[in-house]
Amino acid sequence: MGRRKDKIKLGAFLLFTGHHVAAWRHPQASVGTDFENYFELAKLAEAAKFDAIFFADGVAARLKVVEAASRKAHSGVYPFEPITLLSALSSVTRNIGLIATASTSFSDPYNLARQFGSLDRLSAGRAGWNLVTSSDPEAAYNFGHEAQILHADRYDRAEEFADVVLGLWDSWDDDAFIRDRESGRYFDPERLHRLDHKGRHFKVRGPLNIPRSPQGRPVLVQAGASGPGKELAARTAEAIFAAHITLDEAKSFYADVKGKLGAYGRSLDDLKILPGIFPVVGRSETEAQEKFEALQELIQPQVGLNLLSQLSGVDLSPYPLDGPIPSDLPVTNAGKSRQELVLDLARRENLTIRQLYLRIAGARGHWQVVGTPSQIADVMEERFENYGADGFNIMAPIMPGGLADFIELVVPELRRRGLFRTEYEGTTLRENLGLKRPVNRFAVSNAAAAE
Amino acid sequence: MGRRKDKIKLGAFLLFTGHHVAAWRHPQASVGTDFENYFELAKLAEAAKFDAIFFADGVAARLKVVEAASRKAHSGVYPFEPITLLSALSSVTRNIGLIATASTSFSDPYNLARQFGSLDRLSAGRAGWNLVTSSDPEAAYNFGHEAQILHADRYDRAEEFADVVLGLWDSWDDDAFIRDRESGRYFDPERLHRLDHKGRHFKVRGPLNIPRSPQGRPVLVQAGASGPGKELAARTAEAIFAAHITLDEAKSFYADVKGKLGAYGRSLDDLKILPGIFPVVGRSETEAQEKFEALQELIQPQVGLNLLSQLSGVDLSPYPLDGPIPSDLPVTNAGKSRQELVLDLARRENLTIRQLYLRIAGARGHWQVVGTPSQIADVMEERFENYGADGFNIMAPIMPGGLADFIELVVPELRRRGLFRTEYEGTTLRENLGLKRPVNRFAVSNAAAAE
Repeated sequence: MGRRKDKIKLGAFLLFTGHHVAAWRHPQASVGTDFENYFELAKLAEAAKFDAIFFADGVAARLKVVEAASRKAHSGVYPFEPITLLSALSSVTRNIGLIATASTSFSDPYNLARQFGSLDRLSAGRAGWNLVTSSDPEAAYNFGHEAQILHADRYDRAEEFADVVLGLWDSWDDDAFIRDRESGRYFDPERLHRLDHKGRHFKVRGPLNIPRSPQGRPVLVQAGASGPGKELAARTAEAIFAAHITLDEAKSFYADVKGKLGAYGRSLDDLKILPGIFPVVGRSETEAQEKFEALQELIQPQVGLNLLSQLSGVDLSPYPLDGPIPSDLPVTNAGKSRQELVLDLARRENLTIRQLYLRIAGARGHWQVVGTPSQIADVMEERFENYGADGFNIMAPIMPGGLADFIELVVPELRRRGLFRTEYEGTTLRENLGLKRPVNRFAVSNAAAAE
Repeated sequence: MGRRKDKIKLGAFLLFTGHHVAAWRHPQASVGTDFENYFELAKLAEAAKFDAIFFADGVAARLKVVEAASRKAHSGVYPFEPITLLSALSSVTRNIGLIATASTSFSDPYNLARQFGSLDRLSAGRAGWNLVTSSDPEAAYNFGHEAQILHADRYDRAEEFADVVLGLWDSWDDDAFIRDRESGRYFDPERLHRLDHKGRHFKVRGPLNIPRSPQGRPVLVQAGASGPGKELAARTAEAIFAAHITLDEAKSFYADVKGKLGAYGRSLDDLKILPGIFPVVGRSETEAQEKFEALQELIQPQVGLNLLSQLSGVDLSPYPLDGPIPSDLPVTNAGKSRQELVLDLARRENLTIRQLYLRIAGARGHWQVVGTPSQIADVMEERFENYGADGFNIMAPIMPGGLADFIELVVPELRRRGLFRTEYEGTTLRENLGLKRPVNRFAVSNAAAAE
């Protein structure tokens, strides 16, 4: 197989203490929760020419078992809300993309379209929206519901939500605001487009009350791995943050989703697949392994079980810690794909409950690689060249050290191999990711051009 | 009467082209809609030691009469959404307060509480929320409604919305996050407080998934001048951006609202009243008058009538431009107080429709003062010393020049009179406004102290 002509894209998935569940207990982790801490991480990623920084989000503190939650930094309580945090970072960074997670189940499409449009304008074209439907069962209670919203209903709403947001982002032609002092004409009414959306979930007149954004619209990112999730992504997403452990899983997901693009009139380049990778980098294999073990030893059993329950949707706390995974677990509403991913891993490798949580706790369901810079570059290259990924979302075990390690040790190795940029290709997130600037579907100039 | 011991508070009400409706057509106005333009204005206000910058907002383009709207910069289409804009400004300013408008009718209390909490953390204690119920009839169409929500219903929802948000901001004690590496205890479960709110409009479990903010909570600002608006403000607001033209109106509003505080267990200092002032400053009276006339001449009749209709809720376009205001106009849903304010002015001064829109268009219903620095300082001092105001929200006619004029000419005059600060008193917006940091109503330490 000839080498790919494009290069690896890199995102930095920032979580304030790091991705390892016990990272915050590590003597070298920052538990700083000030803006300065995030600013340092963003500067680090930007200096290394990462495509984007990425923030996960949820809209509930995860208190199902308060005693266990109180032992985790990642209990769903974030030092900042991501849209405001990325806005604050937009004015002190220049090139790096800014991707925030926001929920279609617990937001309003008009407000969301406007805030992301605003972030795209504030950052001169660097915004991305990671669309999630919020599988966390506790979120619904903060938004008037008596119980979690069913998976199918969440996706039904998400489909329509995405359509409304995409439509609102085309409310104005790029050249709608003429601001002609002499004639007193501020905008051209021909170049504004009311959406007049009437659907099952939403009625939205429009237009959006913000001009079209520098990228045409923010980059639309998704993560859903379920059937409806993949379909929505194939139809609308421009990047996917996937979670795959084996190369085969990654290749099959890649082929599956890319294969669906044609049916929606899209080309293979219109969607970048960027799986998460949890890299523990050492100058030697032994150093890497020791770094990893030092983190693993800090995991308290309560925390491990709680995380397992949160990721897989099943509560394993009633079963013996050193016994096998019970075979008759019920399927839950957390998202079947997530649950199967976790339980398949346990069954494939015949893990006890303790071994499973130790395995999961680090990368939290993502691809975990412990090794030297060249070992890590090897598997990244393999996955990239074999079309299992177009790039990766780096989930550093501890912050800031784990991200600094990756940048200091692995990035130069990727560059030596010609796999990663030395300078930004463009000024917008789209340009760096190699995505087209979308044409306004309603634009007057399109119509004129088509005549 | 002895002089007041406190000083005048100053807010800068930023509107990108200026507050005069035709400002954008003026050769000296910036029609820049980039972040840089706002950053310059924020720096200007901060260097002058203003308490805060303030952003209005709406959630609809005002297109009722598209042809007229297309001639106004202020058609409800903003270059940025205020929460994201102020977040971006938070990282490049140090001292100035950041007050954003957000609607209780078209937002969700959990998301709003979290974003403002986040802004307060990002800015190290400089956030304020201007609570509005959105009287703009066009907003409802963007949020699933077939018609505007009635005034009484908006206030019913706003009352409960404010209570939910205030409750969520007390979700965690100030010292809830202990982050003790040794014991593995990240937070203290005793110091988290579920809200468990169940009301007519909202069911919200809580807790908010962000720690308590530096100011305890963002400063709560309101503008409502109606009966329910004043009552809500007296119960919950910490600053009011009022709109009064005469000294008598200002004094009577001030006395009325301050008089209501006691019933809610609050003291006179817990609420600052900051009316808008639209100052046209000249080095001589003639220069000031000429500056004002130059702007007035740029108003197109379509724009004047449309603005009148938007502010007063009545459409005067069917009537002769140079005739009187008809006496039998119907009361509308725009808010009776707003409508009366405008029509009373016309009747008091026997204005024609054209004269009325010329009068209103400048300050748009606010207090308009055209004069020399000492004349402007005189009326500000008079209003302050007579308890018609605790400070003012400066609505510069054009940006950036009008704000620069005020700062260069009027601020030094206020300082000479000992009426305005030369240095910030504190680091938070509360400290500068002279507002107490609220105690967490649920805090464990309160309970301990009370025992």
